Amino acid sequence: MTIIKKFQQTRQATEGLCAPLSIEDYVPQIVDYASPPKWHLAHTSWFFEEMILKKFLPGYREFDARFGFLFNSYYNHVGERLARSARGAITKPQVEDVYKYRQYINEHMLALLNNSPTAEVETLTTLGINHEQQHQELLLTDLKLTLGHNPIYPVYDESCNLVNDSNTESDFVEIQEGLYDIGFEGGDFHFDNESGSHKVYLNACQLSKAMVTNAEYLAFMEDGGYDNFQYWLDDGWHWLKENNIESPLYWHRQGNEWFYYTLAGLQPINPQAILSHVSFYEASAFASWKNMRLSTEFEWEIASKDFSWGKRWEWTNSAYLPYPGFKISKGAVGEYNGKFMINQMVLRGASVATAQGHSRPTYRNFFHPHLQWQYSGIRLAQ
Amino acid sequence: MTIIKKFQQTRQATEGLCAPLSIEDYVPQIVDYASPPKWHLAHTSWFFEEMILKKFLPGYREFDARFGFLFNSYYNHVGERLARSARGAITKPQVEDVYKYRQYINEHMLALLNNSPTAEVETLTTLGINHEQQHQELLLTDLKLTLGHNPIYPVYDESCNLVNDSNTESDFVEIQEGLYDIGFEGGDFHFDNESGSHKVYLNACQLSKAMVTNAEYLAFMEDGGYDNFQYWLDDGWHWLKENNIESPLYWHRQGNEWFYYTLAGLQPINPQAILSHVSFYEASAFASWKNMRLSTEFEWEIASKDFSWGKRWEWTNSAYLPYPGFKISKGAVGEYNGKFMINQMVLRGASVATAQGHSRPTYRNFFHPHLQWQYSGIRLAQ
Amino acid sequence: MTIIKKFQQTRQATEGLCAPLSIEDYVPQIVDYASPPKWHLAHTSWFFEEMILKKFLPGYREFDARFGFLFNSYYNHVGERLARSARGAITKPQVEDVYKYRQYINEHMLALLNNSPTAEVETLTTLGINHEQQHQELLLTDLKLTLGHNPIYPVYDESCNLVNDSNTESDFVEIQEGLYDIGFEGGDFHFDNESGSHKVYLNACQLSKAMVTNAEYLAFMEDGGYDNFQYWLDDGWHWLKENNIESPLYWHRQGNEWFYYTLAGLQPINPQAILSHVSFYEASAFASWKNMRLSTEFEWEIASKDFSWGKRWEWTNSAYLPYPGFKISKGAVGEYNGKFMINQMVLRGASVATAQGHSRPTYRNFFHPHLQWQYSGIRLAQ
Amino acid sequence: MTIIKKFQQTRQATEGLCAPLSIEDYVPQIVDYASPPKWHLAHTSWFFEEMILKKFLPGYREFDARFGFLFNSYYNHVGERLARSARGAITKPQVEDVYKYRQYINEHMLALLNNSPTAEVETLTTLGINHEQQHQELLLTDLKLTLGHNPIYPVYDESCNLVNDSNTESDFVEIQEGLYDIGFEGGDFHFDNESGSHKVYLNACQLSKAMVTNAEYLAFMEDGGYDNFQYWLDDGWHWLKENNIESPLYWHRQGNEWFYYTLAGLQPINPQAILSHVSFYEASAFASWKNMRLSTEFEWEIASKDFSWGKRWEWTNSAYLPYPGFKISKGAVGEYNGKFMINQMVLRGASVATAQGHSRPTYRNFFHPHLQWQYSGIRLAQ
Repeated sequence: MTIIKKFQQTRQATEGLCAPLSIEDYVPQIVDYASPPKWHLAHTSWFFEEMILKKFLPGYREFDARFGFLFNSYYNHVGERLARSARGAITKPQVEDVYKYRQYINEHMLALLNNSPTAEVETLTTLGINHEQQHQELLLTDLKLTLGHNPIYPVYDESCNLVNDSNTESDFVEIQEGLYDIGFEGGDFHFDNESGSHKVYLNACQLSKAMVTNAEYLAFMEDGGYDNFQYWLDDGWHWLKENNIESPLYWHRQGNEWFYYTLAGLQPINPQAILSHVSFYEASAFASWKNMRLSTEFEWEIASKDFSWGKRWEWTNSAYLPYPGFKISKGAVGEYNGKFMINQMVLRGASVATAQGHSRPTYRNFFHPHLQWQYSGIRLAQ
Repeated sequence: MTIIKKFQQTRQATEGLCAPLSIEDYVPQIVDYASPPKWHLAHTSWFFEEMILKKFLPGYREFDARFGFLFNSYYNHVGERLARSARGAITKPQVEDVYKYRQYINEHMLALLNNSPTAEVETLTTLGINHEQQHQELLLTDLKLTLGHNPIYPVYDESCNLVNDSNTESDFVEIQEGLYDIGFEGGDFHFDNESGSHKVYLNACQLSKAMVTNAEYLAFMEDGGYDNFQYWLDDGWHWLKENNIESPLYWHRQGNEWFYYTLAGLQPINPQAILSHVSFYEASAFASWKNMRLSTEFEWEIASKDFSWGKRWEWTNSAYLPYPGFKISKGAVGEYNGKFMINQMVLRGASVATAQGHSRPTYRNFFHPHLQWQYSGIRLAQ
Repeated sequence: MTIIKKFQQTRQATEGLCAPLSIEDYVPQIVDYASPPKWHLAHTSWFFEEMILKKFLPGYREFDARFGFLFNSYYNHVGERLARSARGAITKPQVEDVYKYRQYINEHMLALLNNSPTAEVETLTTLGINHEQQHQELLLTDLKLTLGHNPIYPVYDESCNLVNDSNTESDFVEIQEGLYDIGFEGGDFHFDNESGSHKVYLNACQLSKAMVTNAEYLAFMEDGGYDNFQYWLDDGWHWLKENNIESPLYWHRQGNEWFYYTLAGLQPINPQAILSHVSFYEASAFASWKNMRLSTEFEWEIASKDFSWGKRWEWTNSAYLPYPGFKISKGAVGEYNGKFMINQMVLRGASVATAQGHSRPTYRNFFHPHLQWQYSGIRLAQ
Repeated sequence: MTIIKKFQQTRQATEGLCAPLSIEDYVPQIVDYASPPKWHLAHTSWFFEEMILKKFLPGYREFDARFGFLFNSYYNHVGERLARSARGAITKPQVEDVYKYRQYINEHMLALLNNSPTAEVETLTTLGINHEQQHQELLLTDLKLTLGHNPIYPVYDESCNLVNDSNTESDFVEIQEGLYDIGFEGGDFHFDNESGSHKVYLNACQLSKAMVTNAEYLAFMEDGGYDNFQYWLDDGWHWLKENNIESPLYWHRQGNEWFYYTLAGLQPINPQAILSHVSFYEASAFASWKNMRLSTEFEWEIASKDFSWGKRWEWTNSAYLPYPGFKISKGAVGEYNGKFMINQMVLRGASVATAQGHSRPTYRNFFHPHLQWQYSGIRLAQ
């Protein structure tokens, strides 16, 4: 696919996700780590404007100087920015202004891309596309967080069935002890954090081809999993107690039955479906209860060619750290990944909310271990 | 004015306040004590539904059972309700649904009022009207709080000039020592907290006919008022330090000049205008710096016939406490006032955001002493 | 009694309270609002040094310049001071150094008092004595708070029986409607907050001669008093929920029985004993459950000549506010009372922990409404 | 050395550390993660009682059943325990009781060890000795934290010179790319977290033989290191801002000069001395400013045979995670290490506060990345 096509598809896909929304849905931010749809729409456009158009399109005139302030995220290099927790107060510019902004950026990007862009522009555009794909996923999961806190459980899309897929495989993948190459190799697009192919020595191990299901997790819950400190990491146990966590996110007990909030509304838990919306702490505790463990990100990368993946982000027991030789790029682009390499755990794979083709076996996602709002699940190893 | 006319005018006035809003503006809640416009629109309607229609209109069918849960406020008597801090997450029902709700309530209320309503219905309707007037004021001040936190300082209405009025009087009102009657007397509408005329003995004192202006308050600031503990109540000094308070709310220094955010946008401070958006702590510190004091609510009530008032809510040095013989009414209506009689200070008068005719000399408003978001000002006494 | 005698008795009484302590007991501070015994011993001495000796004893040499910093309290006028919450970290100076400090202050105060002191010195010495008496009470109640948080419930003094006294009277005192004189009149020692006799008009009312007992309060608890919002002020209900309050302070349920921690150790609740260690919120809720109310501080002052008092501090429904004509004194002495006149409720009477002769009918004590650590109780009015 | 000798030496060493203390110093706890000396003295004794004496000494009678509750730490397996933050309120048992407890434990342990102890008893005794050595270090660093918060900067021991040692080496150690054996091998004592020798593939790198000095760190500070986000991990930057961190712990600027609090009192910073009391965030930012990095724990383990270490705990860029095959032991002993394997970074080496012979090249210490209160320093790699 040409980069122009890819650019257009991605931009349209983001707006497609917003098709079922009313204006009201674009506005709220209910926790610091999640952002309003409006912000995602604008921020992904700002990225193209700031990183590409202002530098590479001759005579480009900024759409609105205030947008850089409002829709910058954590890019300290690019001047002052709105406190992350205040994104929900920004009623102006309105949703329609943000769509005009997107249109304006699209037109100028196309002008640039249609006019023999340099390799650097192509590289940055590809980065911008991948950046926007990441925000598509966040847009959906952040939106679910807002809607899921509404006690009337609003439907985003009746046919949106992101949590009910089942395993199609069983058994284990075996890894032999030995040296393996880890990390991305080659010229295709990849993020800096997966770059630098290097050798890692692995001990023999087995990874389950199937992921943990709701039924299996319910068995853990019914066996008192949330009441027994011995399965939990110490920080996890404190998190549990302080936040009264008793189930994965979005699970609600009504009488004797469990339901979950989905983007199609409240539904009875599907026992065969693959578990999602668990934190690393829960994943780790479940594995401990099973007398098994989570794989490392390296084991996962090697084994993943022998099982299907892509429905859930899979927590690994690897901390998010730099690969050998990792260097933070100069300037704002360098803020993309490196500065988050502390206190976060790596997830591998992709989820039902991930854009098609966005992930790959070397892809490294990462979140703080207490977060549940992604479609995150559990694959066991031993 | 007939009660029907009054009802219609009040309902229309609320919607009139929302005329300049875009849908986005109806949604955010940025602090616990302020609510989204959408919530005010719905809540004031719910009040008529819950307190009147469900009880007194034969065959009345609730508009939507879920609204009671979402748009109840602090009325614990009427079942479970949404946590106060979560009002900003309620994107559904949409704004248009809330307007349909208002319409539905209006039609049924008019049906009831047009059909020889009982005295009890008339009394409760008058209460509902006054309740809605209170929410008109909150709607405007809560909205200002949201807009005022947007770094692009959006304009609500170019012609909305609520902070720039000046004093029209000077000099002092004298009160002679003696016994005075305080509280509302007679059959007209009034709240339970002002009811029960009773005698209060006052010492001789003087109240300023003019309120403190921005220029006077600037003199306090320039004299180091915010840096000098001796002017401040102890709790006020801690509030100052913990929240880095250095000026009234909405004031911003740019270079050597002070500006304030108004509903017509950011403007240079008008020195002659009456000060607003100060907390009780600031009012008290200013008075102390002036070697004067705030009046009590009783002094204010007696003196107020001799000065003009109604532009700013005026902090008094009276704590909000029951009058002799005060009894909390049975049921939900009883939750209106009595349970807030702790940790709050009384304000007297009315402000530029108050509905015409809503207040009177015996009217008691009350807020926690650190709050600045009302059009609150200072009248000195000695 | 001569002032010298009074001074000596007071200083000795403070040390007498510490007689049962081990060195360890002098050190901890477990909440911001309570201080270690060592700090009380030193602070009361510092008061004499700072307010009297440094100004009036010719050639006086400060004991140790660092003590002013460490043992100042809220006297901002007298230079920088230790953060209130850090008092528990001060292991040096040691307890024995603090006793040496006391001895040094005593000797110099006696030198001053024996040498024809001026009226000003006498006045300030009397203030210092009363100040130290207040700290005697705090020393005991702060100590109880520390010991009471030790799960082995240590005994301070086997014979210390401060919570088990019963009512000796029943029936009600009647107050007739009319004008009354309130506040301290005359030349004897009194605090500035009770000064300025003035007229207050009271409506007719009745105050119970007996205070609420543990048995009566248990009836409230067993009737679901802590689970029923309608008895509670709104701020009180939030306080309850956030802090999981289910009983007065120091009460512990073991099986089906209630015990309380006393300075003589853990004991079964004595049903006939007068209730103590309730917050204003609890006092107010109990009164509401009884369909009665708390008296105002003015009613209490008038009625108190007709009942016995002095076992419990009695919460009134009066906010702590200045009397007419109240002026804050110049300098550090002026910080004594005035700056606390916000967010606190008045208690009248005295408690079993109060020094003999310290209180009087016009005496005004005051605390924030959520605090339970004083020997505070309930007298009902109607 | 026989185990009896080792046991006796260790027990005496702990008490030796307390020799300069007054009783007051044994009591305070000023942050959750630090404990009072008294608690360390008792807890290390409780470990022997709970893990050994109660199980292996026939007829052993517990010293005092309440001590298990008070002086347990995080051993959830052994019943309820005191909240970690409440250790500073425990004035009883007194210091002398804790010494009696130590004496009692010593006598019974010696009786057990003198009577042909089983291998299991010897193993657990060795664990208890190493556990107590760890608490010796904590006792000293926790004590420094308390004393260091006293504005009069008390001296623990005039001759205690733990922060002033300099580097004795310069230049770099080279590591060749290749496979290396990591982890403890053999029968000697070691902790479970370093057990399981396994292969790790390392890329070529260099580790500095010298550690970062105060002078080098001052250059970072003077170059605006604490004001420039680009050197900092994102979580580190937030930590900095929220806590107003502007220097290593215990550093105080007076005029134009920097001083640090040491256990010998306040001293001018010694520029040649090795830096200590930095958090991982500071170590990482400093390395970034130097355009270098921290080593991994594996690089450190291999390189450490070629440089001297043992003056500072050295932050590595490795997260604290299990080695291949790590299993948590059954029961309370299993709570020692495994449950902390999240959100912490590994430190290697030892510090001036570590007991002689306690550490070794495979030893893994670990703390949360914001903590500064250990003698932690920086060794750079590239």
